[in-house]
Amino acid sequence: MTKFIDFYFDFSSPYAYIGYKEIKKLEKKNSFKIKFMPIFLGGLHNAAGITPAAFIKLKSKYMIEDTKLVSKKKNISFHFNSYFPIKTVNFMRGVLIAEKDNSEKNFIEKIFNAIWMDGLNMNDPIVINKVLKNIDLNPEIFLKKVSDQKVKDKLRKLTDDALKKKIFGVPAFVVNKKMFWGQDRLSYAIDEIKK
Amino acid sequence: MTKFIDFYFDFSSPYAYIGYKEIKKLEKKNSFKIKFMPIFLGGLHNAAGITPAAFIKLKSKYMIEDTKLVSKKKNISFHFNSYFPIKTVNFMRGVLIAEKDNSEKNFIEKIFNAIWMDGLNMNDPIVINKVLKNIDLNPEIFLKKVSDQKVKDKLRKLTDDALKKKIFGVPAFVVNKKMFWGQDRLSYAIDEIKK
Repeated sequence: MTKFIDFYFDFSSPYAYIGYKEIKKLEKKNSFKIKFMPIFLGGLHNAAGITPAAFIKLKSKYMIEDTKLVSKKKNISFHFNSYFPIKTVNFMRGVLIAEKDNSEKNFIEKIFNAIWMDGLNMNDPIVINKVLKNIDLNPEIFLKKVSDQKVKDKLRKLTDDALKKKIFGVPAFVVNKKMFWGQDRLSYAIDEIKK
Repeated sequence: MTKFIDFYFDFSSPYAYIGYKEIKKLEKKNSFKIKFMPIFLGGLHNAAGITPAAFIKLKSKYMIEDTKLVSKKKNISFHFNSYFPIKTVNFMRGVLIAEKDNSEKNFIEKIFNAIWMDGLNMNDPIVINKVLKNIDLNPEIFLKKVSDQKVKDKLRKLTDDALKKKIFGVPAFVVNKKMFWGQDRLSYAIDEIKK
């Protein structure tokens, strides 16, 4: 029986990117599959009463150095996005669109890389359109689809569901109903799956 | 030449306790010495604009489980203090008093253990007095000494100095002028000292 790790993420978080690259590596070595759980981090933080690190001066400066260092130690190609914070809500909705034709793995990989490997300005519509075209998506159709109220509602519901599972930040890993927060805790999630 | 790791702490933080136990273990194995840097975490958080985890419902609940789990993985005797948060400012000032007769190592060990190993109600004057007597301190004299304006000012200055070094939380480790935040980053501080 295949075991799953639920991976809660939002493209906006550099730590979610690091956690994503790590869990992808481990998925190949271990006997588990990743279940991708897109959420809207801004909404989650808001509901949980959390001020994002991006809006705390000392913490956000430290985060830049820390994410660079962690990536280096883990041999992950990383570029702190100088346009941070990136408005990712449409990309999170895009994951839900991509799920419909099973292309979500490729979509997730390409968007994460555009933001945190290539450091592109993914707040700029021209840059966004280029990236979408490179993954064979028509920007106009994409924008129309992610603006659909049903898709918006679905992402909101997924975010509410995450909150009900006591998730308040990303990346978060859920195994055997146990929640582990932060890329630093991925190894604990792996230990849990081996139980 | 002996190398030093500056260890910034406040007894109030369970992660500072975990970091303390870890760095003590490593000090014996590695060729470095700990330089204890007491600060007043409440003041630091305030100045940095940070809401402590203790005051964020989901985060504080997670912290209880996380600190238990981390301690277990690291074989650290730990008991999440059910009287948390503990008002530790007088104990932090106590470190400065203890420094005067070189008894700070023993004082730090005993206060950390009282709060996070024995889980005592260190908000209760009766309990505090018992703990102080056990380390051969006269509670009345102790209270008088930590109420001295000079001692208060010194802790405030140390906290301000920490902030100037971009420290916004504990435990924090400073090596070669580089700051590492959180017990999860102690191994990075050790790597830095080996450079």
